[in-house]
Amino acid sequence: MAIEQTWRWYGPNDRITLEDIKQTGATGIVTALHHIPNGEVWTKEEIIIRKKMIEDAGLSWSVVESVPVHEDIKKQTGNWKLYIKNYQQSIINLGECGINTICYNFMPVLDWSRTDLNSSFEDGSLALIYEQKVFAAFDMFILKRKGAENDYSQKIQDQAKAYFESLDSEGIETLTNTVIKGLPGAEESYTLEQFQSVLDAYSGIDNATLKKHLEDFLKEIIPTAEQAGVKMAIHPDDPPWGLLGLPRVVSTLEDAKNIISTIDSISNGITLCTGSWGAGYFNNLSVMAEELSHRINFAHLRNVKRDTDYNFNEDYLFNGDVDIYSVLKTIVKEEEKRKKEGRTDCSIPVRPDHGNQMLGDIGQDNNPGYSLYGRMKGLAEIRGLELGIRRSLSE
Amino acid sequence: MAIEQTWRWYGPNDRITLEDIKQTGATGIVTALHHIPNGEVWTKEEIIIRKKMIEDAGLSWSVVESVPVHEDIKKQTGNWKLYIKNYQQSIINLGECGINTICYNFMPVLDWSRTDLNSSFEDGSLALIYEQKVFAAFDMFILKRKGAENDYSQKIQDQAKAYFESLDSEGIETLTNTVIKGLPGAEESYTLEQFQSVLDAYSGIDNATLKKHLEDFLKEIIPTAEQAGVKMAIHPDDPPWGLLGLPRVVSTLEDAKNIISTIDSISNGITLCTGSWGAGYFNNLSVMAEELSHRINFAHLRNVKRDTDYNFNEDYLFNGDVDIYSVLKTIVKEEEKRKKEGRTDCSIPVRPDHGNQMLGDIGQDNNPGYSLYGRMKGLAEIRGLELGIRRSLSE
Repeated sequence: MAIEQTWRWYGPNDRITLEDIKQTGATGIVTALHHIPNGEVWTKEEIIIRKKMIEDAGLSWSVVESVPVHEDIKKQTGNWKLYIKNYQQSIINLGECGINTICYNFMPVLDWSRTDLNSSFEDGSLALIYEQKVFAAFDMFILKRKGAENDYSQKIQDQAKAYFESLDSEGIETLTNTVIKGLPGAEESYTLEQFQSVLDAYSGIDNATLKKHLEDFLKEIIPTAEQAGVKMAIHPDDPPWGLLGLPRVVSTLEDAKNIISTIDSISNGITLCTGSWGAGYFNNLSVMAEELSHRINFAHLRNVKRDTDYNFNEDYLFNGDVDIYSVLKTIVKEEEKRKKEGRTDCSIPVRPDHGNQMLGDIGQDNNPGYSLYGRMKGLAEIRGLELGIRRSLSE
Repeated sequence: MAIEQTWRWYGPNDRITLEDIKQTGATGIVTALHHIPNGEVWTKEEIIIRKKMIEDAGLSWSVVESVPVHEDIKKQTGNWKLYIKNYQQSIINLGECGINTICYNFMPVLDWSRTDLNSSFEDGSLALIYEQKVFAAFDMFILKRKGAENDYSQKIQDQAKAYFESLDSEGIETLTNTVIKGLPGAEESYTLEQFQSVLDAYSGIDNATLKKHLEDFLKEIIPTAEQAGVKMAIHPDDPPWGLLGLPRVVSTLEDAKNIISTIDSISNGITLCTGSWGAGYFNNLSVMAEELSHRINFAHLRNVKRDTDYNFNEDYLFNGDVDIYSVLKTIVKEEEKRKKEGRTDCSIPVRPDHGNQMLGDIGQDNNPGYSLYGRMKGLAEIRGLELGIRRSLSE
C-alpha cells in the first residue's frame, strides 16, 4: 500500500526523457496528447501509441493531465455541444485503453499565471513567483482594462503604477509575454489584440454563469466517466482568485464542495493541488484535504509562501504556508480507508508539482516549474514523508 | 529541533562545489584536511582557512571525517606515541576552532572495500557492490595469501576459482586496482608489493591485540576530547568482517558496546553507519541504533541488500535490508531525549552516505559513492522521513 509516485511528462519533445524519470523513482507518468487540437477526440490509436511508449520504458501512464476543456464549453457558445460529445468520446477511449484518471480544469483563458518564471532564490536556484503589483501593472497599464481600478486595493494600485513607470520598453514586452504567451500546460498563446478579444468574449459571464456551465458539463461527462471506469479530477484555479475580471469557480473549499455535490460519484473528484489553492491566504489546505478526502483522485504537492496582498512565491516542499505533512497524512489515511472498503483503486497518484530550477537544470530548456532536479528533490521528500507517516500510523 | 542535514565534501578539489551543496538542502559540511599527511598535527591556521571557506558559502563545518589514525597507532609500532600526541593536538585545535565532532575509524590497511564501483542498476544508474567471490579471487589468486583457503566457504572458493579463470589480464588488473588503489577517504594507495608488505606488518596482530590497541588509543584521546569539547565518533568496519586475514574490531554490536564502555563519556561515541554495519547479515541496525543511541554522535544513512555469503550491493535508501525508518526514529527520539536533559548539543549530524551515480552524475568525475544527484535524492528522502517521524511523534 503506497501512494503512486508520478511525474508530469510533456511527451516525446520533453527534454526530460522517460529514462530520466525512472531514475527519479517515479513509477507513473502524467501526460497528455498535446498535439491533438483542443476540442477534438483523442482516438484510441493515438492513446495506444503514447501508452506503449511509456510502458516500453518500464513505466505506466497513470493520469491524463489534461484533457483540455474547450473555451466554447466554458462559455456555452459555438460548437460547445459537439465539444462535449468529443470530450465524452475521449473519456470512453481512455477508459478502454486502461487509463483511468483524468485531470482537467475550468479556468477561462488563462491556465495559470505568474509574473516571473526565473526568480532568484538565496541558494542560487530559480523559482516561479506571482506579484500582484506586477500583474496589476499589466492589467491597468498594458491591457488598460476598464474596471481594473475596482479589483485592486489602493496599495496595490499605487505599487503597480510605480512599477510600471520603472519599466523600459523591454520590461514591458517581457511582462506582456509572461502573462499572455502561455505557460506549460496552457493550450493557447495570444497576441495582445487576440488576448483582449478572448477576454471580451467573457464579458457577459460572471461566476454564477460559469458555475452553471461547469455543472452542465459535469452532468454530461460524469455519467460517461462512471460507465468508462474513469475518475475525473478537477484542478483548482491557479491562482485561486479572479484575474482580469474573468470568472473563477474552483478557488475555495466551498467551490470544491459545490462541484463534488453536483453529482455524488467517485468519478467526480478533484486534483488536490496544494500550490494552487495554497496561494490563497484564505485557503487552509489541511482542512481542505480532510473535507475533500473522499473525492481526492489525484494530488499535486508543492509549497508556496503567500501574503494577504495576493503575492506568492513557490518554495521548497517543506518551506511555506502549506502543511504538507498534514495533507499527505490525510491522503495516506484516505488510501487506508479505501483499502478497508475493499476498493481496488485505493492508491492515489501523487506528483511533485513545480520544483525550483537547480544545479544541472539551470540553463536547460525547462518548462517553467518542470525542472528535473528540483522535482526529483520534491519527489524524494514526498517518498520519505510518506514512509514516515505510513509506518507511524501502523505502530 | 531537527537533525543536522550534512554532506561530505572532499574539499576545494571536489567537483561538487559548496554552492552545489547548498542547493541540495544540506546545511552542514563534513570534510577533512586531506592534504595534511597522516600523523601530522592539523594546525589552527589550516583549520581556520577551511572553516572560513565553508562559512563564506553560508554553510557550517559540522563534522570532521576523518582525522585519520596512523597505522603505527593501530600496530603500536614506530612513532605511535608521537602520532597519538599529534592526534590529541589536532583534537584540541579543532575544538578551539569550534568544530566539535570527529569521525574516525580503526580499520587496518583498507578503509573500505568493494569489488565493483560502477555496477549497473536496472534503472540505468550505477552503484557500488561487493561480491565475496571476486574479493576471494583477488585474495587467493592474485595475492596468493597463505591461509586464504581457511577464510572462505567451499562454495565461495569454487566460485572464486571459476571467476578468476574467467578473467583476462585486463580483468586481473582492474580487480587489483579496485581492491588496493584505495577508495575515496582512504589515505593510502599501494602497489601490489607494498600492499603485501603492509599486510605482513599485521601478521602478529589478531583481533584481541587490535582491540587492546584501540582501547589504549581511546584512553589517550577521549580525555583530551572531553576537555576540548569534542565528540569522537568511531566509524564501523566496512564491510564488517575480516578481510585478507586482517583484524577487525568495530564490526558488531558487541564491538561497539566494548568501545563505548571503555570510557563512559559523550566524547566516546560512534558513527552509526547503516551501510557499513548493514552489509553484515548478522547485524540488525534497528537494534544497534537503539542500544547505542546514547552514544550516536554522527550518522551515515544508506541501504544495502546483503546475503549470508557476504555479498552485498548498495541500494536506494528505502530499498534494502536496513529498516531506515526505525533507525531514524531512534535518532529523532534520542535528540528529543537530549533536549529534555537540557543538553545544548542535542542535534545529531546525519548525512546521506553513498548514492547511486544517476542522471547528470554519469560520466562525471565522481568519487565512488559520492555522486551529486544520488546523494541529493537520499538527503531529500531523509528530510521527508524525519518530518514524518517527528510530526507523528508529537501528535
